[in-house]
Amino acid sequence: MVKVSAEIQSLKPYIPGKPIGETMREYGLNKVYKLASNENPLGPSPKAVEAVKMALSELHRYPDAAFFDLRQTMSKYYDVAPEFLTFGNGSNELIDLLIRIFCEPGESILTSQAAFIAYKICAQAARVNTIETPLTTGMRFDLKAMSEKVQSGVRLIFIANPNNPTGTYVTAKELDEFLMSLPKEDPPLVVLDEAYCEFVRAADYPDSINIVKRHSNVIVLRTLSKVYGLAALRVGTMVAHPEVIDFVDRVRNPFNVNSLAQVAAIAAVTDAQFLTEAQKVNWQGLDYFYDELSKMGLEHWPSQGNFVLLDSKLDSSELHEQLLQQGVILRPVKGYGLPTHMRMSVGLPEENHAAIEALKKVL
Amino acid sequence: MVKVSAEIQSLKPYIPGKPIGETMREYGLNKVYKLASNENPLGPSPKAVEAVKMALSELHRYPDAAFFDLRQTMSKYYDVAPEFLTFGNGSNELIDLLIRIFCEPGESILTSQAAFIAYKICAQAARVNTIETPLTTGMRFDLKAMSEKVQSGVRLIFIANPNNPTGTYVTAKELDEFLMSLPKEDPPLVVLDEAYCEFVRAADYPDSINIVKRHSNVIVLRTLSKVYGLAALRVGTMVAHPEVIDFVDRVRNPFNVNSLAQVAAIAAVTDAQFLTEAQKVNWQGLDYFYDELSKMGLEHWPSQGNFVLLDSKLDSSELHEQLLQQGVILRPVKGYGLPTHMRMSVGLPEENHAAIEALKKVL
Repeated sequence: MVKVSAEIQSLKPYIPGKPIGETMREYGLNKVYKLASNENPLGPSPKAVEAVKMALSELHRYPDAAFFDLRQTMSKYYDVAPEFLTFGNGSNELIDLLIRIFCEPGESILTSQAAFIAYKICAQAARVNTIETPLTTGMRFDLKAMSEKVQSGVRLIFIANPNNPTGTYVTAKELDEFLMSLPKEDPPLVVLDEAYCEFVRAADYPDSINIVKRHSNVIVLRTLSKVYGLAALRVGTMVAHPEVIDFVDRVRNPFNVNSLAQVAAIAAVTDAQFLTEAQKVNWQGLDYFYDELSKMGLEHWPSQGNFVLLDSKLDSSELHEQLLQQGVILRPVKGYGLPTHMRMSVGLPEENHAAIEALKKVL
Repeated sequence: MVKVSAEIQSLKPYIPGKPIGETMREYGLNKVYKLASNENPLGPSPKAVEAVKMALSELHRYPDAAFFDLRQTMSKYYDVAPEFLTFGNGSNELIDLLIRIFCEPGESILTSQAAFIAYKICAQAARVNTIETPLTTGMRFDLKAMSEKVQSGVRLIFIANPNNPTGTYVTAKELDEFLMSLPKEDPPLVVLDEAYCEFVRAADYPDSINIVKRHSNVIVLRTLSKVYGLAALRVGTMVAHPEVIDFVDRVRNPFNVNSLAQVAAIAAVTDAQFLTEAQKVNWQGLDYFYDELSKMGLEHWPSQGNFVLLDSKLDSSELHEQLLQQGVILRPVKGYGLPTHMRMSVGLPEENHAAIEALKKVL
């Protein structure tokens, strides 16, 4: 028996959406609809694919550890100075790095119940505690309750906005009040995890990049995995005060973002047409889901992401299994303290229809 | 000022080889020879490039977090059971993970002076100490001295074999004696970092995979970045006892190895023809370097890698600068306590010739 800490010994890893290939193998299916990982149903941006093709002759070279071209492009795209930016092997790595850098073992992160589960997993791996406040009605983060939990030893606060898997969001006014409530002396760092921000339709959603410019303790995370369709390649973006960026750049592995991810990200963010189309497909799909779920009398919550959370009132492991037999992969979210809930990603119309039909059949 | 630990505050990041593009920009050059990062001068395996092309339509899907296909292929390739394997975003990530998992802050890793510098950097980032023993004559690791430094609090021992940047190696007999010298009760984990093993010509080099099968505390790291020419994509391999693998799989981010890296690695390790050619080019280049450096009277050490270490007797920062003006990028290794030494990667014959001519010109 190898010696490890109690935290590592008891760590339960992240459970990803069931892969299509695995489902086909296990259930003997030829056709499987996967609406389990909030992936872009349109596929990757064609401009990104072209950029990757152009870079294939240089696979033997190490990636640019300094992100020279990527930083320039994202600087223009986000309208921030290049020194406000760094990048991760997906935003998951950036979450992990922030905890490892800014929390000491025994200190804490603060977040909400049912927040994206990677915060808690990364904290535990770093021997860091997680403090959670309960959700308020409507599956929303309770920023007032979170504010009251800020205490010495809380070094990082994670606000997923919009949140996965609930789809709910924090308004500009709520966020502003929360930031003003923090101690002026040595405030904790506040991480706004905006993986799904491009799907938001709410008019009162915060302008986080401008908040970073005014608040040196605010950090924004974005990803190329969702609306830009590059989940396979792993690119997360961090926008933060240069002092924070500098620490992340020192601790991250120098070649953490692979070369193809870097060129694909540069191409994808300049593909405005693709972004517009992805938003349109998502919003139409969400509205279809709302209609159908309402007709079925299934409780669900308005979503600012590319997925919807529903409450089947049945054990979600059983429902998941029955849906797999129908060739539909959705995502049970028991790990979030939501035992009868299921998260359903927005797909193409055909996929959305198949998911609704499968739900109708098994419920 | 954001609050961070003294270890993070004083951390000096890894300095990668100077990129070609950056050198062209700064020096106004049209042609630059980069022999600074131990990259494969033949480029990537053509089979790997083809495999990547086939996967481009699925860039919107998350990678397989369980490495199903990759594990199967590497299991056959290394002749170990699949549960003895896991993978990292380059072997750098695996080094980082091992330290974070198996060392607590204040505990130590043990390695040699002039060992691959990532060990020390990753340890410091995790608030873990590094104990180093001096090199023995001929720039070799002193395993006897390392054995004497094993004490409580030393949880991980890193043996780079062959080592970067010295090119020297540890023999099967030396390694066997070292492993037998470790405490039987709760022994530290011994990491054999074999990033360059495919370039080894020495007959008495250890058969590490078989050692892992006999010693549950031995871990082997390999990489696809060197002989397989996939540095851009980031794939490192770990071969270890399933208990060790299980802890790494719990702590690593689930999507740490991108999808293109996974398919490229599968294709590359089955490209035996490419491997043979890469070895041949490397060995011819090394022999050419030995001849030319001897003629120039420059001290150098026989290398089991794809690079050679030389001692210019001049400050290596100055030499580096003068070589850059000639359009040749080599690698100063001051960070390793070798202030007048330079590491020169093996390139194609034309590149090797250019490097030697530039050295002749500036020395």
